[in-house]
Formats: sequence, structure tokens, C-alpha cells
Amino acid sequence: MEVNDMTMREKYIEAKLSWIAKNTKASIIRELLKSTSIPGMVSFGGGVPDPDTFPRHEMAQIAKEVITDEHHISLQYGTTEGDPLLKEEYIKLLNKHYGIKDLTEDNIIITTGSQQALDLIGKTFLDQSSICAICSPVYLGAASAFKVRAPEFVTVPMLDDGPDIEELERKINRLTDEEKSRFKFIYMVSNFDNPTGVSLSLEKREWLVDFAYDNDLILIEDDPYGALRFEGDEIPTMYKIAQDNDKYEVNHVVLLNTFSKVLSPGLRMGITIGDPLIIRKLVMAKQGADLCSPTLTQRLIARYLQKYDPITGMKPTLELYAAKRDTMMKAFKEHLTEIEGVSWTYPHGGLFTWATLPKEYDTMEMLPIAKENKLIYIPGEAFSVNEETREAVMNSMRISFCLPSHEEIVEGTKRLVKSIKEYRVKKGW
Amino acid sequence: MEVNDMTMREKYIEAKLSWIAKNTKASIIRELLKSTSIPGMVSFGGGVPDPDTFPRHEMAQIAKEVITDEHHISLQYGTTEGDPLLKEEYIKLLNKHYGIKDLTEDNIIITTGSQQALDLIGKTFLDQSSICAICSPVYLGAASAFKVRAPEFVTVPMLDDGPDIEELERKINRLTDEEKSRFKFIYMVSNFDNPTGVSLSLEKREWLVDFAYDNDLILIEDDPYGALRFEGDEIPTMYKIAQDNDKYEVNHVVLLNTFSKVLSPGLRMGITIGDPLIIRKLVMAKQGADLCSPTLTQRLIARYLQKYDPITGMKPTLELYAAKRDTMMKAFKEHLTEIEGVSWTYPHGGLFTWATLPKEYDTMEMLPIAKENKLIYIPGEAFSVNEETREAVMNSMRISFCLPSHEEIVEGTKRLVKSIKEYRVKKGW
Repeated sequence: MEVNDMTMREKYIEAKLSWIAKNTKASIIRELLKSTSIPGMVSFGGGVPDPDTFPRHEMAQIAKEVITDEHHISLQYGTTEGDPLLKEEYIKLLNKHYGIKDLTEDNIIITTGSQQALDLIGKTFLDQSSICAICSPVYLGAASAFKVRAPEFVTVPMLDDGPDIEELERKINRLTDEEKSRFKFIYMVSNFDNPTGVSLSLEKREWLVDFAYDNDLILIEDDPYGALRFEGDEIPTMYKIAQDNDKYEVNHVVLLNTFSKVLSPGLRMGITIGDPLIIRKLVMAKQGADLCSPTLTQRLIARYLQKYDPITGMKPTLELYAAKRDTMMKAFKEHLTEIEGVSWTYPHGGLFTWATLPKEYDTMEMLPIAKENKLIYIPGEAFSVNEETREAVMNSMRISFCLPSHEEIVEGTKRLVKSIKEYRVKKGW
Repeated sequence: MEVNDMTMREKYIEAKLSWIAKNTKASIIRELLKSTSIPGMVSFGGGVPDPDTFPRHEMAQIAKEVITDEHHISLQYGTTEGDPLLKEEYIKLLNKHYGIKDLTEDNIIITTGSQQALDLIGKTFLDQSSICAICSPVYLGAASAFKVRAPEFVTVPMLDDGPDIEELERKINRLTDEEKSRFKFIYMVSNFDNPTGVSLSLEKREWLVDFAYDNDLILIEDDPYGALRFEGDEIPTMYKIAQDNDKYEVNHVVLLNTFSKVLSPGLRMGITIGDPLIIRKLVMAKQGADLCSPTLTQRLIARYLQKYDPITGMKPTLELYAAKRDTMMKAFKEHLTEIEGVSWTYPHGGLFTWATLPKEYDTMEMLPIAKENKLIYIPGEAFSVNEETREAVMNSMRISFCLPSHEEIVEGTKRLVKSIKEYRVKKGW
């Protein structure tokens, strides 16, 4: 009876679903992270900042003030574009820290986290069978936002200094004119990529800006981690590179930023910068998506920016992350090198490194062994969009160093080595 | 040169846009509401609650507390489903005030305003050329969320007690089997509809629940205004009607609620209730849309609900709105009746009435005259989805009584009569 009920319900509902709802799978990461609450578990999984690093006392006070004194704004609907005061303050911050100049309100849309910006970009540019280029591996949130629009993906491997540009050139040159007309944009994380930890070199940024322009493409530059640099010099954003070169008659770069790593992900505040014509289209897409982002959190951040500089305020956090990165790199050198053929990226900032085992390994298959050993990482295949890209990254894993303690980083590395060895035994290697 | 630049930019960007981005027009309402800041303007336009009616001092205190004491939740990413504490408290509230019982966490998803719920419903159920049924006129936010998916609309006129169900039956019976297989849902605002102010009678609710079930359809019940009843008895939601009748083997109703009219739209907090299988699909769509709604505002509302009952707390607000409704109804009777053939709805709650002029009037064409007379209303055609529905409502207008003062309501009514008369002169009638 119970079973029949289920079947009837399932059938009734299943018959009404859209193609995408039928075909979307739950995020592997999401499912995995549920295991992090098991006692004794070391998690290299979550790519989330430590909430203790956020200026909560300052934010608590400002929240109280903006609700009490500015309730006609903070408790009311706002414009879809976003709080003008927040835009004004952010324009100053972009100018001061990143040298981006001449922005006006019309260059900016505030979104509900930069995940929403990705969703709006999908709606604004992609139709079914549109083409877009992404890296392999790719940030999962971007892939899932774009996938809703059912596009075709051109994928290029991520190397140590950015995408394999020769492969990108080859793949795009191979397209027919008809395919080129369906090609909309290239999507890249410019700093401390999720999942690889890689930053695009200046040369590759310049090349990408140029290449996108020559091919009449939009360049989507996702930069959630830019403020988390703890080593090396700032590299200009592709948005700025395009802006500073007179040869580009249109700034074809759309830059996605967020406060999630700087002030708190709980505020869900993203900021997208681009040509006013593009921003206008994103605004129209946002009207149907959520009318406007919360005015309370927008005004809270605007008032915070008037009083404090969150980028300068990041210094202690960056020292914390840098020390953890160092601990991890040292532990990898000491222990992980026991495994023949292993390699990993050395991140100059951000939250992640990307470790790669020899080709025959399957990190998803190995995961239950790691879990037995009380360790979680994210298998590479979580960051793939199709079978081809899955095969290219199934021997890799994303490893986060921001949340575990120094002791956990060392212990987790040992558990990783142990798990790899046990996996080898199981496979009979 | 300037012009050439523009053309180059426009061409570059236009060529990359999706079909929907090319074809979406900015909301008429949005554009109109920009005029409300003109001094002396009486606005019957905005459907927004008065922020002075919200419990801001209580919310300010709670906001400070949840940021200071619960920052591991309120400043961190949350689950896509929503804050479990908020769900728990909301389940109690639904039970206490609306008699909805036996809900669990799995029946609920928290969204970024109920606008997001509409967007997720579009993604979850609609493909290009799917069919859904809506009223004419229809809530604009629903229409724009669904339109992104490029469906076909079956439209039925809204009468004084709900949709024209005979027309709905006729239209659905006329569909071929192939068309029926593409038919996904019926969308209805159950209480104090936007724009008409109409509530669905109990009989029509029961009929709709039955009819949807017999035709294997999902029934989307949008209820943002239910808590704003100031006259007459509560009518059970269609969700509850389906739940309480054993003959339905699946609860095929999805109920959309929001805190926007009760605690503040600035928090952007919507709550959707439905079968766990449907909720699970909405959650998966939300992952790509914004990962999660702001944890700060979710926890703020959860703690508020633990301390206060926002529905009981609405009483003074409802008295305020009821008095304004009375003033408007009286002013209409006194002045608007000068216009032959005019009619309007008598709302038992909510924010709107819907006034209809004789067939030959075009309220969009009349609007500039009203603006000259310093009055804004929303022309009926703003709530249409195609030419057929535009023609059906172009002689109507949405008139909001919640924000203008009593004096402004009387004065605005006089200006409306003046504008209609001037329009008649201009038309030579």
C-alpha cells in the first residue's frame, strides 16, 4: 500500500517536471558535506570561510542601526539594480584597491550572492544549444547555473597559470561559422580558482581579453577570491585590462565579485560590474528571479563600507590562511610525496589546493576508504560537466585548507596517504 | 563618433543575448513608480506595505543578537533548503493560524522572496512550449518568472469570486491529448489577488483542487496577502483542502507564502510548502540560482517567531488598511460613480482594488493625463501576457489603498475622475 502510494505520487509529479528538473542531480559536494558533522572527521571538503574571522560586533551594531533608523529603506522593497549607496561605496573600494576607474551606478548590479549573477548570466546569454567555454575542472556553481539553459560546453584544461590557451584557440578555430554564431562567452575564475587554486597569469589574462574580443565573445571573469591573496603581487582583473586598453571599443568583460569571502557568505551579497547595456539585461532577468536582493543586508554592507575598509581588515585572516596553506604544503611534502606520481598546486591565496594522483586512480571510488579513515575531500569529478571532463579529473581532488586546524591539516594529510595506500591494496596495485 | 561607438557596443552585446534577454521588456510598473517621487504626486500605484507598520525595534534587537551570538549560522552559508529553525517555527505558525497539519522540514523550502519561488517553479515544471493556466489579469511577477521558460499560457478571466471556471473547463477540454501532456499547472492567487483584490470563494477553491487533480495538474497557490484579511472569515487554503480530503492520493497543491507583507519585504523571505518530492526539485533548482537565501535574515525571522506572533501582531496594521479601504470605497461611491459604466472590486483584505471603465477606454493611453493631474495608477495591461489578455484588461486599472493617506485617497479619486473626463474630451466622446 505504502509502495503504491509512493509510486502514484512519484508518477503524478514526475510527469509534470521540466527536462532540466528531471535531469538535475543533487550536488555531490552538498551530500558529502553532510558527513563533516561526524565526530573526529577531518574535513578538507568545505570551501567556506571561518565565521570567526568576520567583524561581527561591528556588523551587529550597524544592523541594529539600519533597521532602527533607516527602516524606510532596510525594511522596504528596493530597486532591482541594488542599493545606490552600496554601489557608490563599492565604486570607491574598487578604485582604491583595484584601480578600476570611471564606474557609475549603471555599471553595477547587486545580486543575491554571486551565484545569482551566474544564473542571470545564463538567462541573459544562453539559449538551448548556445556554446560557452569553461575550464576543466570548473567551478560547480557556474556549471549548474549554465546547465539550466542546456548549452554546449567547450572545455579546456586548467594548467598551473591559467587555461590551456593553445587548446582553447584550437577548439574555437575548429568551430564552423554556424557554431561561432552560437558561441556566447568564455567563463574563467581569475584568482585562486575553485577548485584548482590556480591564478591566471598576467599574460594569459591579456591574451584572453584579446582573444575574446577578436572572436566577438563576452568574457565572464569570476573573482570571488581576489581579496584573499597572501603571496605575490596583485594581478589586474581582466575587466581592468580591457578598460585600460583603448583598442577595445567595448568593454566585453563582465566581472563578478562577492562579499562572501570578505564580510560573510550569510549576507548573500554579490556585485557584478560590466557594460551598462549588459547590466541592464541582467537587471531585467533579476526582476523575474527575486525582484531585488535583501535591502537590509545591502544597507548593512553600505554603512559598513562607509566606516571600515574590509580589504585592509582582511589582513589577520590572510595571515591565518597563509599559515594554514604553509602547514598543508609542508605536510604534503613530508607525507604525500610517499605516493609516486602525485602532484598538487601551490596557491598564492584563496582556500584550495588541487592534488592529482596518477591517471589510474579514481578519487570518487577512493572516497569511502577516506571516510573510513575519517577524512573528507572533494573528488575531482564533482567539477566536471560531462563524460570527457569527468575522465580528465577523476584522479584529482579539491583540498581546502581554510577551516581545519593546523593539527587537523597534518593528521588529515596522514589519513589521505593511508587511504591512498589502502586503495592501492584494494585495487591490487 | 559617439553614435558609432554606441552602435558598435550595442551590436557586439546584442549579438550575444539569449532569446529571452532580447525579448524581455522592462516592467511598466517599475518605470511608473519612478514618478512617485515627484512632489505632490498621489500614488495609487505601489503595492507595497507601509514600513512604519513593521516591528522594527524588536527586529533591530534580534538582528544584533543573531549576528553577535549565532554568527556560526547567521554569517555562514546555510543549506539550500533553508534554516531548520525557521521551518520549525513556521510549521507551528501554519498549524496555529491556518490549521495546516503534519508538515515536516521536507515539506518546506525557504526562498529569496516568493518571487524566487515562482522562478524555481518555472524552472522545475516548464519547458519551452509547456502549457500553464493563469488568470487574466495575472500577477506580473508570476508572468515574468514563467515567461523566461517560454511556455504557452491558457488564460481565464478573473471574476468577483475567482476565475471563470466554466471557461477554464471549456479551454482545457478543448486541448488535444498531446497538448494535455504538455500541460503542467494552474497558477492562482487565492486571497486578495494582485491586481484584482479578489479572493477565491470556498466553492471555487474546492472545484480547482478537484479539477486540477482530475486533470493530473499541479495547482500553484500563491498567497502573499492571506494574513491581510480585515473582513469576513478565513477561507481554507487549497493546500489544506487537498490535505484534508482523503480522496487525493497526492497533495498536488504547492503553496507560496511570504513574510514580505507581514514582517518586511526588505528581508526577502518566502516560504513554499508542498509534497517533499516537489520541494526536493525546487531545492535542486535553487542550488544553481543562489545556493541559499541569506542566513542572517532567516535566523532573524526564526528568533522573531519564537518570541512574537506576527499574525496577531498585524491587528493594528489591518485596522489601518481597512480604514483606508473604507475611505477609498466611500470616495469611489461619491466621485467615481460620476463616470458612467465604471465598476470596481470590493476587497476583504490586501492592498488593491481593480477599477474597470467601459470597454472603449484605454487606461495606458489615459495615464499621461492622470500624471499631469498628479495621479498614478497601474494600467490594466501591465497584468497581461499577450495581445488577447491585453485587450481584455486595457480598460481597467489597479488601484492601491495601502500607502496613500486618507486625504490623498479622496484627493486622488477626484483627480482620477478629472483625468477620465479630460480623456473623454480628448477622445471626442
